[in-house]
Amino acid sequence: MSMPTPLTGVVPPVCTPLTPDREVDVPSLLRLVDHLVQGGVHGLFVLGSTSEAAYLTDRQRRLVVESVTGHVAGRLPVLAGVIDMTTPRVLDHVRAVTEAGADAVVATAPFYARTHPAEIARHYRLIAAASPVPVVAYDLPSSVHTKLPADVVLDLAAEGTLAGLKDSSGDLAGFREVVVGARTRPDVEDFSVLTGSELIVDAALEVGADGAVPGLANVDPHGYVRLDRLCRSGDLASARAEQERLCGLFGMVTVGDPGRMGGSSSALGAFKAALHLRGVIDCPATAEPQVPLSAAEVERVGKFLAGAGLL
Amino acid sequence: MSMPTPLTGVVPPVCTPLTPDREVDVPSLLRLVDHLVQGGVHGLFVLGSTSEAAYLTDRQRRLVVESVTGHVAGRLPVLAGVIDMTTPRVLDHVRAVTEAGADAVVATAPFYARTHPAEIARHYRLIAAASPVPVVAYDLPSSVHTKLPADVVLDLAAEGTLAGLKDSSGDLAGFREVVVGARTRPDVEDFSVLTGSELIVDAALEVGADGAVPGLANVDPHGYVRLDRLCRSGDLASARAEQERLCGLFGMVTVGDPGRMGGSSSALGAFKAALHLRGVIDCPATAEPQVPLSAAEVERVGKFLAGAGLL
Amino acid sequence: MSMPTPLTGVVPPVCTPLTPDREVDVPSLLRLVDHLVQGGVHGLFVLGSTSEAAYLTDRQRRLVVESVTGHVAGRLPVLAGVIDMTTPRVLDHVRAVTEAGADAVVATAPFYARTHPAEIARHYRLIAAASPVPVVAYDLPSSVHTKLPADVVLDLAAEGTLAGLKDSSGDLAGFREVVVGARTRPDVEDFSVLTGSELIVDAALEVGADGAVPGLANVDPHGYVRLDRLCRSGDLASARAEQERLCGLFGMVTVGDPGRMGGSSSALGAFKAALHLRGVIDCPATAEPQVPLSAAEVERVGKFLAGAGLL
Amino acid sequence: MSMPTPLTGVVPPVCTPLTPDREVDVPSLLRLVDHLVQGGVHGLFVLGSTSEAAYLTDRQRRLVVESVTGHVAGRLPVLAGVIDMTTPRVLDHVRAVTEAGADAVVATAPFYARTHPAEIARHYRLIAAASPVPVVAYDLPSSVHTKLPADVVLDLAAEGTLAGLKDSSGDLAGFREVVVGARTRPDVEDFSVLTGSELIVDAALEVGADGAVPGLANVDPHGYVRLDRLCRSGDLASARAEQERLCGLFGMVTVGDPGRMGGSSSALGAFKAALHLRGVIDCPATAEPQVPLSAAEVERVGKFLAGAGLL
Repeated sequence: MSMPTPLTGVVPPVCTPLTPDREVDVPSLLRLVDHLVQGGVHGLFVLGSTSEAAYLTDRQRRLVVESVTGHVAGRLPVLAGVIDMTTPRVLDHVRAVTEAGADAVVATAPFYARTHPAEIARHYRLIAAASPVPVVAYDLPSSVHTKLPADVVLDLAAEGTLAGLKDSSGDLAGFREVVVGARTRPDVEDFSVLTGSELIVDAALEVGADGAVPGLANVDPHGYVRLDRLCRSGDLASARAEQERLCGLFGMVTVGDPGRMGGSSSALGAFKAALHLRGVIDCPATAEPQVPLSAAEVERVGKFLAGAGLL
Repeated sequence: MSMPTPLTGVVPPVCTPLTPDREVDVPSLLRLVDHLVQGGVHGLFVLGSTSEAAYLTDRQRRLVVESVTGHVAGRLPVLAGVIDMTTPRVLDHVRAVTEAGADAVVATAPFYARTHPAEIARHYRLIAAASPVPVVAYDLPSSVHTKLPADVVLDLAAEGTLAGLKDSSGDLAGFREVVVGARTRPDVEDFSVLTGSELIVDAALEVGADGAVPGLANVDPHGYVRLDRLCRSGDLASARAEQERLCGLFGMVTVGDPGRMGGSSSALGAFKAALHLRGVIDCPATAEPQVPLSAAEVERVGKFLAGAGLL
Repeated sequence: MSMPTPLTGVVPPVCTPLTPDREVDVPSLLRLVDHLVQGGVHGLFVLGSTSEAAYLTDRQRRLVVESVTGHVAGRLPVLAGVIDMTTPRVLDHVRAVTEAGADAVVATAPFYARTHPAEIARHYRLIAAASPVPVVAYDLPSSVHTKLPADVVLDLAAEGTLAGLKDSSGDLAGFREVVVGARTRPDVEDFSVLTGSELIVDAALEVGADGAVPGLANVDPHGYVRLDRLCRSGDLASARAEQERLCGLFGMVTVGDPGRMGGSSSALGAFKAALHLRGVIDCPATAEPQVPLSAAEVERVGKFLAGAGLL
Repeated sequence: MSMPTPLTGVVPPVCTPLTPDREVDVPSLLRLVDHLVQGGVHGLFVLGSTSEAAYLTDRQRRLVVESVTGHVAGRLPVLAGVIDMTTPRVLDHVRAVTEAGADAVVATAPFYARTHPAEIARHYRLIAAASPVPVVAYDLPSSVHTKLPADVVLDLAAEGTLAGLKDSSGDLAGFREVVVGARTRPDVEDFSVLTGSELIVDAALEVGADGAVPGLANVDPHGYVRLDRLCRSGDLASARAEQERLCGLFGMVTVGDPGRMGGSSSALGAFKAALHLRGVIDCPATAEPQVPLSAAEVERVGKFLAGAGLL
């Protein structure tokens, strides 16, 4: 299928279940996809940061995309991350994921290499020229160490280079600048603005976002779908209550001891532990060199699930 | 050949000449290698940041290593960067570059992914366990956004995980902590400490560095080899004069208009323009999405060469 | 008067008009206060960042507080910033502004000095112990280079050290954590949570903020008061439209040429130029070493005013 | 006396001893000055970062300068920090410290306020215009969050605005750019370049620094004076050994538990504990809100002193 215009609703960045020896666990991945589809999500984003794309080999990445697109079989759009340092390397991923059936590619600005707004624009133009499917920009300053400037994004939208933005910057004011620009600039059409900030999805929709890409939706897709519906129906009090329930659940990302592991080990470890506890995936392992959660830390994940009514 | 213990002297990070359509220009690359070898360098570091490794596809990376190791044929050690985001992806590069003949691999801490000292240690241990050749840590906080802690490096040296450090942090005090620790800790043996700070090679050698990995040595290998020799002979006044001449030459990295391009486009563009002007390589193109220098900017590179007596 | 519990509504950080020779222009300051009071604001915050507190001498700071509290005469609460590097220096400001009649003090975490959550807590406890009026924490990471952790803020609220938070971090997810904690933690009572993010006041109120401290309210107090009223009445479509009009007006902060001046010169210069163009203050001068706007840049400020229906 | 041209040798940033109730302990301060003078230092820098200037009230700052200049009575130059956020506030300090007898003032770029190179230049020009004594720029990016650009410093030196630079950035390459520029630019005369990096004083002198401002010289002035002499005599092997002994001693700055306090509490706490253990000052208290060292941490400071032969 092609990416809807605009892309709306809940589009979870799909976790990548691994086996104990860190291979892609395809059966668990497909069960997770079923869990999300049954939860009512509106699209899937594979090979994002929450998918541990940064930790997957090229072979594993391809396997993920092929497995998911084959299983989904056009029932809903599958976006695929093409996360790499610079244009030539990203182009290789564009080729791989589109051959594997992705309906859109999601690309960050260059990283590791020092960059510049002019180079970011050049980067996206080259990607769009080479990609058979729409290109979505991925703004994730905590990983990329550059913030995508709103005017660069809007200019690239206007010229048809970008079809959308996934904004995980946490900066709602900057996000709003893109949302409002996309709605009011006469030269911008059919541009999808999605938030990656799972704790303020209600606020993002309120300022005009088209949809959300919440990592926590792996654990509780029904909650985010309900939240999306409540926001759209204008029942903001209920929406706020649902969002706050999800914020409480999100507390699980801090279970890992910061003296023993980094934030990624803790957060992705918690998501996978929760999926394992909920019976969706077979093994909670995260990719190397992330540090596994201890048994006590996993137990605390369980308490978060229980507290949110998910166990 | 195997990596010497310790690795000393000048080990340039070799630029990767490209054709106008951004393919690896192997004949130019081999001429550049000859230019460096004739300049008297003591080793070669391919696929480093100055080599635009972040911009090269896996196919191009492999071609670079194979071409250089084949051409050098054991006359001097060839270190190869395995720059990627996390352990599983780095391991794929380790396999590729060692099959292509690299004598050592050079790896950064994880990047893009959030990380932690415990995860950095785990990362290097997994790399060392998988690598048939020595592992050198690459400290480049401006790209990696993490500084390798001196105690982590020394502990990994002591346990035999790391064979050396290439420090491009610019932090000479932290560098000295590793140098002194490597010399005085009884549990650390045969650890090579190299500086990547081309403007203070004299000072780094003075505090006890084994060698240097200066990007500018592509342009003037004779200068850095002379500097290395002067430092080792104790003729510090002449060493300082030579280093200051090289600092003047390094000014070329600022020729690019910062309104039009980033620091990488300017610096790598200048190095390649200089190599082109000196007749070493056929084409000064840098990889996408870097912005090319203008004719006027290239002319200013020529003036830096002339000022340093190289044209 | 004492600070209301909670403090709600619009509490502008009051600009400090200066004479051409950079003395506090008291008549203009009082006219600005009248302009704000007539606009319907619910409190005044003097000596904040928008007030150029960082640029005012101690004598000037005292003059500002005395002038405003004397003029306001208890009609609405006057909060005063006590912005300085560390506890002993802040305590001197607490003494000065409370002697001058401030109803609450607003203090950042320590800056310039390296700090730590335990030291931040100690800092606020010492301030609260010495202050005869309530203490509001001021979270401004772009200036202070530390983010106030939500749990530290809530613990200090619970123990009665802090009476409120002014959050100018731009991080709505973190802001929400304080808002929700203040509402749900049984040990926290009467804590006021205010946003300083003038571009997302509607969203902040929607997640539960008590009020807002928008710098742009100097220029258009009626607009922010209207926005506050619309949000509280539940007319979110109109609220969003009003907020977007204000976002458009806020564009004035970028009129200054970034090659010639910093962001503060541009933003504060624009606010003061707007107040001058609107006839509220006599002179648009900003404090040294800020760079004045050019005539052309001031003209662009006028266009923003016209575009928002304010001229 | 007036500041020598250039200022050379060891110029310690003098710690400010406090009483248990955090008042300036003048007798201890004067004993510390005697300890430094007897150690052979070449000047004194009061109200620097190591002096806890950021923590001292204006009254305390004035007392420090008056006490030290009165006691020194022209035997060696006394530089005084004028650390504050912006020009108007710094000018108040300039007035205070020069009335109190300072021979030069040491000023950072603006901080807290966002700034720009043009504003930094304007800042120093206004300070120089108002100061009856020479102005030294203080580059401390870890506190100020701006790096002084080498070309701005050199241009201000050329026009006579700046008489010197104290560089605590840790960036020896940037430091060298100023050193070489000061020596080779025909328009720059009598400019003093001092390093604040106590772990690489030998290297800084080797690249051409005029002198050093090492915080650790409070604890071991004889060591730094010896190091300075060895470097100047060309006995680099002995210089390196002395510097490495001092680096070992510097390890004391890490005694504080990072879970309980920040880096400043630990480092300044260790310096003061060392001065107390050596019998120079009466009380090791640091200013609020710094966290005191525990008895066990003080004991570790003692071990560092013993290890360096100072107890």
